[in-house]
Amino acid sequence: MIENDSGKKIFRVGILGYGTVGSGVAQVLLESRPTLKEKTGLDIRLHKIAEKDEAKLKEARFDRSLWTDDARKVIQDPSVDIVVEVIGGIEPARTFVKEALAAGKFVVTANKALLATHGQELFEAALAAHSAIGFEASVCGGVPIIGAIRDGLVANRIDSLCGILNGTTNYILTRMLEEGASYADALKEAQSRGYAEANPALDVTGGDAAHKLVLLANLSFHSIFHLSDVHTEGIDKISLEDVRYASELGYTLKLLAIARRREEKGAEGVELRVHPALIPRAHPLASVRDVFNAVLVRGDATGEVMFYGRGAGKLPTASAIVADIVDAARGSASQTFTKLQFFQKDRPALPVVPMAQVQSRYYVHFRVTDRPGVMGKLAAVLGEHEVSIASLIQKDQQANGEVSIIILTHQTLEERFRRALKEIEALPFVRQPSRFIRVGEG
Amino acid sequence: MIENDSGKKIFRVGILGYGTVGSGVAQVLLESRPTLKEKTGLDIRLHKIAEKDEAKLKEARFDRSLWTDDARKVIQDPSVDIVVEVIGGIEPARTFVKEALAAGKFVVTANKALLATHGQELFEAALAAHSAIGFEASVCGGVPIIGAIRDGLVANRIDSLCGILNGTTNYILTRMLEEGASYADALKEAQSRGYAEANPALDVTGGDAAHKLVLLANLSFHSIFHLSDVHTEGIDKISLEDVRYASELGYTLKLLAIARRREEKGAEGVELRVHPALIPRAHPLASVRDVFNAVLVRGDATGEVMFYGRGAGKLPTASAIVADIVDAARGSASQTFTKLQFFQKDRPALPVVPMAQVQSRYYVHFRVTDRPGVMGKLAAVLGEHEVSIASLIQKDQQANGEVSIIILTHQTLEERFRRALKEIEALPFVRQPSRFIRVGEG
Repeated sequence: MIENDSGKKIFRVGILGYGTVGSGVAQVLLESRPTLKEKTGLDIRLHKIAEKDEAKLKEARFDRSLWTDDARKVIQDPSVDIVVEVIGGIEPARTFVKEALAAGKFVVTANKALLATHGQELFEAALAAHSAIGFEASVCGGVPIIGAIRDGLVANRIDSLCGILNGTTNYILTRMLEEGASYADALKEAQSRGYAEANPALDVTGGDAAHKLVLLANLSFHSIFHLSDVHTEGIDKISLEDVRYASELGYTLKLLAIARRREEKGAEGVELRVHPALIPRAHPLASVRDVFNAVLVRGDATGEVMFYGRGAGKLPTASAIVADIVDAARGSASQTFTKLQFFQKDRPALPVVPMAQVQSRYYVHFRVTDRPGVMGKLAAVLGEHEVSIASLIQKDQQANGEVSIIILTHQTLEERFRRALKEIEALPFVRQPSRFIRVGEG
Repeated sequence: MIENDSGKKIFRVGILGYGTVGSGVAQVLLESRPTLKEKTGLDIRLHKIAEKDEAKLKEARFDRSLWTDDARKVIQDPSVDIVVEVIGGIEPARTFVKEALAAGKFVVTANKALLATHGQELFEAALAAHSAIGFEASVCGGVPIIGAIRDGLVANRIDSLCGILNGTTNYILTRMLEEGASYADALKEAQSRGYAEANPALDVTGGDAAHKLVLLANLSFHSIFHLSDVHTEGIDKISLEDVRYASELGYTLKLLAIARRREEKGAEGVELRVHPALIPRAHPLASVRDVFNAVLVRGDATGEVMFYGRGAGKLPTASAIVADIVDAARGSASQTFTKLQFFQKDRPALPVVPMAQVQSRYYVHFRVTDRPGVMGKLAAVLGEHEVSIASLIQKDQQANGEVSIIILTHQTLEERFRRALKEIEALPFVRQPSRFIRVGEG
């Protein structure tokens, strides 16, 4: 950081990676430099861009002299104040972030996979270097959710978070619900529109949402959680039939990421789970369509607060990165960063509540032989396990003599429900494995 | 500000007014002092409370020695760092805020009426005193919308804002839509629940929403606007019949506060309006029910971002006030405040686009004599004024020979629509003044 002629501070930004997000950051920095100066008093300049693949810079509008193919030329440049890591993946991003911190740079990143798996190591390195890592862009793209939880809700004890954190799966579910597309067709459409990767596994299995949930939970509960703490189910086993039946019952299917504080004896700690869930159509999260993301936060003072917006994309992500750059340049980042206690070694971690101890309502779809006494037997087994039925629908018999029975349960313990299900599936009249979806936001 | 034994900073807070919000601030400060210290490193202490009416302190749990009946004892106390103004109304709040600023205190307030009418004077006074005014609590209670626009969306040019900014009217409209309550009954229910004042005029006429819109627009467009710049219509003339017809058409009625940048030749500037509007049921703002508030912000980089939560109430408002206290104690407030340029005298103000130049779709309800040729004449007059019909419903004839004709128009200029309406109302077969509601979020 140096001062220019008029006494204003100049901050120089180096970007590692000129892919979609990197080019967005360069664009926003170049286009909004005058307005950022007016709004913040800070002169933030794009100084260097490292990108191995020169072809990616073909349409870049910045002076080609800013380009280098060597990330270390950015990291080691003494005039660079802030390093933006938008390479993605674990390596070499991890090494570069550590080197940048060691060189005294602020680091800003959108890399949730890196932070969810190596966050503690990197945050500790930042603290040791008296620097900071900005990660607003790592969750919910352009929605300023990290800042909101850290600063805007600072007076609150966070009781729960419930979010739609993955745009790709939300797009797929929206197409299935609104157009009756099959999972496979909706996935293909998401791929053709560039919303899903050629290998969509990280999205559709819930892994990406789990990464983001770990970051939000760390921040909200001031405790460090790991990816392995999150019970993760994807949408890849959801059938169109269940999406339709649930819709008839007034519910919308979403892939929810839930973190919830529990205080009852025997189940103290935090629930961490990503799974498909049915929510009532009038619920604020139900109107989150297509690639949009949203997070519903419950604080003890504010009650329910929701944040909604585009969870990914070039400019929304760049918007969050530039907000972090401004925060670092203002000096606020280093102040607040040292107080993010979750990654500090001596801090006792909150226990994770096992899935068996989660309370939920359930939608369950049984395929059974259509004969007298079946319904009674189902109800009896559920009752024995203290799973109480809220509503029940029997669908018309199929050509093969099977019927679908759809049951919505009242709230019950996951372990009770699972035991009941296991017993039911062993019954002779049950023809196919039953399918269940949790109901409610936890 | 002084340092305590362990080198930590101590910040002393004085509160002016111990009503609902004041008692909430006291409660949050007392209860969350240890966690705030842990989260921020700051020791924020409740130091003095001024309240004329001692009876209000009956259930207060703080040491009675903190109490004074003289606001000036708080303002002039040299050990008070931050003055929280939660008296409400214009005077004496305005005088106290000015005195507190002159005495070198930071001021935090939830008083939108004061800031919307005397904001420029007070903000200039804060600047002159090298102090700052925090006003997060003045819009949308516990939702950190001010911080989000100022910091989280700093990289964006804001193109529009559209919000449900008044909880009382939203509660009334929710009861009308969901339970078929009349306006009068819904208002009574809101009053009995304590959501509406005995004199509900400021809420139901749209005045309160207009106050908040002025603050959001000032912040978003970096230009100073005044209450008189806002075209304001309330919900007091809305009929249950229209709420029902609109619902049949798939729309939900909301009182929207809209600020929108316009750049077309002849209509450059900002639209500022508060009025009832019909939005499609799948729209994110449609699921904002009861006393909840929400603001949809469109930034050039983020696209649509929405913030949702309780717009009022003791603890949500206290949450926002304490966030501002932390911001001031951290030193961030003084940094960002000096850059809020909207109230600086030399700054050219953006023009306000007159209502005649607003583009909208319209729902219009005509009551006409049921005779041949009526429909044709209506359509012809609308057509002459370039108002094009998107859909039309004729309701059954009533005993008095009248029929209701409901027309949804395509987008048109307000002045064209108004001219067409005037001409139609002069026609002999039109039996009652027509009623119209704008459609869409502008």
